[in-house]
Amino acid sequence: MFYLTLPCQVVVSGEMIEYYDISGCYIMRPWTMSIWEIMQAFFDAEIKKMKIKNCYFPLFVSPGVLQKEKDHVEGFAPEVAWVTKSGESDLEVPIAIRPTSETVMYPYYSKWIRGHRDLPLKLNQWCNVVRWEFSNPTPFIRSREFLWQEGHTAFATKMEADQEVLEILELYRRIYEEFLAIPVVKGKKSELEKFAGGLYTTSVEAFIPHTGRGIQGATSHCLGQNFAKMFEINFENEKGEKAMVWQNSWAYSTRTIGVMVMVHGDDKGLVMPPKVAASQIVVIPVPYKDADTKGIFDACAATVETLTESGFRAEADFRDNYSPGWKYSHWEMKGVPLRIEIGPKDLANNQVRAVRRDNSAKIDIPTANLVEQVKYMLDNIQQNLLEAAKQKRDACIQVVKTWDEFIEALSQKKLILAPWCDEEEVEKDVKTRTKGEMGAAKTLCSPFDQPELPEDTLCFASGRPAKKWTYWGRSY
Amino acid sequence: MFYLTLPCQVVVSGEMIEYYDISGCYIMRPWTMSIWEIMQAFFDAEIKKMKIKNCYFPLFVSPGVLQKEKDHVEGFAPEVAWVTKSGESDLEVPIAIRPTSETVMYPYYSKWIRGHRDLPLKLNQWCNVVRWEFSNPTPFIRSREFLWQEGHTAFATKMEADQEVLEILELYRRIYEEFLAIPVVKGKKSELEKFAGGLYTTSVEAFIPHTGRGIQGATSHCLGQNFAKMFEINFENEKGEKAMVWQNSWAYSTRTIGVMVMVHGDDKGLVMPPKVAASQIVVIPVPYKDADTKGIFDACAATVETLTESGFRAEADFRDNYSPGWKYSHWEMKGVPLRIEIGPKDLANNQVRAVRRDNSAKIDIPTANLVEQVKYMLDNIQQNLLEAAKQKRDACIQVVKTWDEFIEALSQKKLILAPWCDEEEVEKDVKTRTKGEMGAAKTLCSPFDQPELPEDTLCFASGRPAKKWTYWGRSY
Repeated sequence: MFYLTLPCQVVVSGEMIEYYDISGCYIMRPWTMSIWEIMQAFFDAEIKKMKIKNCYFPLFVSPGVLQKEKDHVEGFAPEVAWVTKSGESDLEVPIAIRPTSETVMYPYYSKWIRGHRDLPLKLNQWCNVVRWEFSNPTPFIRSREFLWQEGHTAFATKMEADQEVLEILELYRRIYEEFLAIPVVKGKKSELEKFAGGLYTTSVEAFIPHTGRGIQGATSHCLGQNFAKMFEINFENEKGEKAMVWQNSWAYSTRTIGVMVMVHGDDKGLVMPPKVAASQIVVIPVPYKDADTKGIFDACAATVETLTESGFRAEADFRDNYSPGWKYSHWEMKGVPLRIEIGPKDLANNQVRAVRRDNSAKIDIPTANLVEQVKYMLDNIQQNLLEAAKQKRDACIQVVKTWDEFIEALSQKKLILAPWCDEEEVEKDVKTRTKGEMGAAKTLCSPFDQPELPEDTLCFASGRPAKKWTYWGRSY
Repeated sequence: MFYLTLPCQVVVSGEMIEYYDISGCYIMRPWTMSIWEIMQAFFDAEIKKMKIKNCYFPLFVSPGVLQKEKDHVEGFAPEVAWVTKSGESDLEVPIAIRPTSETVMYPYYSKWIRGHRDLPLKLNQWCNVVRWEFSNPTPFIRSREFLWQEGHTAFATKMEADQEVLEILELYRRIYEEFLAIPVVKGKKSELEKFAGGLYTTSVEAFIPHTGRGIQGATSHCLGQNFAKMFEINFENEKGEKAMVWQNSWAYSTRTIGVMVMVHGDDKGLVMPPKVAASQIVVIPVPYKDADTKGIFDACAATVETLTESGFRAEADFRDNYSPGWKYSHWEMKGVPLRIEIGPKDLANNQVRAVRRDNSAKIDIPTANLVEQVKYMLDNIQQNLLEAAKQKRDACIQVVKTWDEFIEALSQKKLILAPWCDEEEVEKDVKTRTKGEMGAAKTLCSPFDQPELPEDTLCFASGRPAKKWTYWGRSY
């Protein structure tokens, strides 16, 4: 079936993406961008409430700075794109394109931060980044250029940094659950999976039932003082002593939209949660031979006007070269949450027919109740999508306690919850032992919401005492 | 004086810009970004009303596509940055970074546009572009990477395209005059100065009195059918015949902010028009030795709260390591439109003292009238800045009719309005004859608002019959 991986066909026919003539780059069409803008409006307003300010740092990084943090550069170096020429001339020194901006920004944090009154320093930028990956480019999920926000903050104390990590993670959870209708698990990444050069990484993790893979939704890192050490970000504290800042960085990207496509899409195409749909309602005239075509078209236009005035995003499809049936399929493919049909009978009865994209339910709405009923239905669709996704995801969760159970669950594409000793060598060992054409299993996260762990529980993989419950699986 | 060119020092001390370790790239700090965001919110809403939709095309361009339109590539090729490596590997084919996106987008316009029902196609993107210039990098005005919006639209008829060119140009005028308080002239560029590969270019032109240079503020191009021919953007019209689209492209960039700095800045630093200022009001406590410090601080906090609740952007400067005098200079340098001081006398009299950045006027405001008076003053500052800039600009306009008058006016750094024969060779000739270390004179635009041109008027440069009044000068 088309959705065994990201439904590449459906994002094209649904007019979200166009393939581009450079592999791994994709055109994001308006149907995609409006989702991005809606999430951006929410997130940007929330971080402004937290007194985080927007800035814009350059796209380019000089090689010296890029290589300053060793673990960090090891993580990114193989994917860095290099500019070596301008016009016909070779540059004196090749210049990197940012894969992320820690090393771009922190030399200036060092310059701007002098005393405790300069803290906290809390900046964010909305920008593009480039990671020249070679494995299976996929729209949204693995593209060589993508859009994201990256927040970079510096604090006087670890406590403040720790607290912000979680505040941001909660915003990421809300983007997924309240906007994209996708259930996520909040948790901590393992040492092996954490951000290169950071202290610890938290994430929201989603799961795609039909592929049996976890997917990292967004990450909020505490960088500790490691970058501060490399970039000499020091300050004079209130006692007049020299101290080093504590830093965080956090990001979510256009990958969020790919997760949405995979979680909600079905055989008919895309399914857009109402909160992020560019068009929440499409109105389609259904005239018959001898019908009052003008009356029907006017009723459609009036319906769109009423809905738009009430704050909904609605449009009519008046094209005269397509049949109503063709239009139904077209807008279903694009995932519009609610379709309104108006035919002669509806006109006669002062009603419209509404058809839900999520469950195909049809209901006749008296014109007088239009706004109220549409509001109710859209709210209900939004809720229902999250609920349905949660049920499907939960049905995939498998608790395992032994290696055999683990292997069995993995073959059944489960989201595996297992007691783990939390040792890096053991995770490496699990990866080696599960290698195969489907990809190895790895930790997704240790959920903050931990089930009880009886004292003598053993690690499913090492047989040593377990320290925590951890989600495992294959992932994107 | 510092402002003979763009006041590079003032954008650094005013915390708008930080110089970056790659020449020609600059860090845009929050004080800059909030101006950009305010203009963006306005423009984005306006173009959405015009049913223009946002999209995002890739940063990268393959060389074949870039070179498709000959005049166009000649205009941009010397400044194109090329990616030739990723990680340690050489790319098979070098890949360009977009200097603008005509050639990135139009192959897909050709794919998406089939019939007249697919028209108009109206897209816009907010993005970064790269032009690797070698001459005098300057923050905002000439930087190797900058932010902009670029709109790209296709129509069935030239009439629709012509009309949109002017609608967009009017939005650019509003950005300059209503937001940045900068007077601009709307007009048409000469053949020599028009967009490479386009049919005609309109622009809004500003003028910097103290440097005597014109500056192109933003451009709205009609591309005609030239790109359509190259990229085969055809459609079947209503009669079933094959036809070719008419296209526009239009853009404004972070250069707008540089123009603002140059037009309004003075010896004390930046001057922000209230409509775009990140902080419109700064409140500074002015305690004396035996004064009720707590009472003063509370009054400052209450003032900020009252103003913020009324929709103003206000903040207090409570730092305890700086004197009030230091703070006055600091916020003057940053260009905050209105400073409010609260000292013991103000506290006793239930008043605050307000000091305007634009004209240093001081006024005591009873606390009870705070919101109303602040609103009045900010409106007045906004108006006054535009009016003052207009007077200064107008005082520089010099009407000339002969070559000698032209040369004299040029040496006096005037904005020259002259009758011109509108011949490309003549403009080239003027450029050659005025070459020098200050740069050559060129046309800025032929204003839409043309003074009367008596029938026998001759061109100031060629002595042939004049066709129109045109602005000339040195420019950025």
